Amino acid sequence: MEIKVAVAKVGKWASSESGDTLEMIERPRGGISFVLVDGQRSGRGAKAVSNLVARKAISELGEGVRDGAAARAAHDYLFTHRGGKVSATLNILSVDLASKTLVLSRNNPCPTIVVTPDGDLQLIDEPSDPVGVRSWTKPQITELPLVSGTLVVVYTDGLEMAGARSEPVFDVPAAVRELLARGSSGARDVADGLLERALQLDARRPQDDISVLALAVGGDGADGTRRMSVRLPL
Amino acid sequence: MEIKVAVAKVGKWASSESGDTLEMIERPRGGISFVLVDGQRSGRGAKAVSNLVARKAISELGEGVRDGAAARAAHDYLFTHRGGKVSATLNILSVDLASKTLVLSRNNPCPTIVVTPDGDLQLIDEPSDPVGVRSWTKPQITELPLVSGTLVVVYTDGLEMAGARSEPVFDVPAAVRELLARGSSGARDVADGLLERALQLDARRPQDDISVLALAVGGDGADGTRRMSVRLPL
Repeated sequence: MEIKVAVAKVGKWASSESGDTLEMIERPRGGISFVLVDGQRSGRGAKAVSNLVARKAISELGEGVRDGAAARAAHDYLFTHRGGKVSATLNILSVDLASKTLVLSRNNPCPTIVVTPDGDLQLIDEPSDPVGVRSWTKPQITELPLVSGTLVVVYTDGLEMAGARSEPVFDVPAAVRELLARGSSGARDVADGLLERALQLDARRPQDDISVLALAVGGDGADGTRRMSVRLPL
Repeated sequence: MEIKVAVAKVGKWASSESGDTLEMIERPRGGISFVLVDGQRSGRGAKAVSNLVARKAISELGEGVRDGAAARAAHDYLFTHRGGKVSATLNILSVDLASKTLVLSRNNPCPTIVVTPDGDLQLIDEPSDPVGVRSWTKPQITELPLVSGTLVVVYTDGLEMAGARSEPVFDVPAAVRELLARGSSGARDVADGLLERALQLDARRPQDDISVLALAVGGDGADGTRRMSVRLPL
């Protein structure tokens, strides 16, 4: 079996820095974790906040701390350092080889999309607070079996607000369904397809930082080689 | 302009864990760093060592510490914790957008390969000690301009020892030349091509953990989107 993960990430139009941060870290007991943070507002200030939250989370995860505790630590750290005045959304998506599960930790009003092996699309959308502003904020945690055919999509609010003046117009779950119906089953196709649709809605001038992460379980992974590719426009 | 980075990584045959660790971290002043560590010996013990060294290095880099100081800190940390009894090689490859350079930090007897825009292949192979065993070990640091057409290849010793009984038989620089002559100019082609050649030499049963990282500067990066893809066989 094989895990494929794809990230597509673009900054707000004409803004020097993206306020979204995506980091990846190996889990010392086996597996890998992805941490996606969207700092409040945009530009340099948002970047500093999202960096701080992401760094705290990956430093905990890299030491073997469980996901729920890492998310709590990231909240407490931001809350303490910024006096409860700055918020950030935080998603942790982990492939945990010790428990043989996917662990989804969510401090983000944006839902997480899960497509099960039988093609059922589920929204994880229970109320969930960003980190940094309310005492004792906890993540909402979902654990899924590592089963071939599972697809998970996590994103920041820039995606669902694409093209919006006041109300959201981009129905992200519907777009995922459409991409799957058109045969785009891979993580790369889904991440790129969603970002492309958002860029069209924003007339290619994104009104906010947009990040999409898609993870697909499947394939045979027969050659045993781990691969990573990164493209970084300057 | 655009940076493309490709990593290919395989564990020693019939060994549960790779003793090589590759981590990536955003630089808070702009850019990205890749940290590649090969822990002494193989299996679980080597993994613990390489994790420890990689985590220390990325935690420093994530806080904005300069590469040379991060490598020194990783050495001091391992030296202190393991009493100078355990070694690890450490390479840091950074795209530093503050200085607009590539920063190559090397604590590894294996050379780093640089292909310049005019096609010249250079070896960075000054004497360089692994971290962890000798007091005050320093990295060997090279800074290159961020110029289109530059290619950098970093690897762990499993690559150049592929197929070897006692003496190395895999001439890695010659293989890079050959791949380029055949038109493989992309980072992905070079990383995969080198690993494939090593697996052939090892009769597809690698005698050691092998990791290859290739970075290419080029292209136009016109769409402004950062992309990452990960494949993780289970």
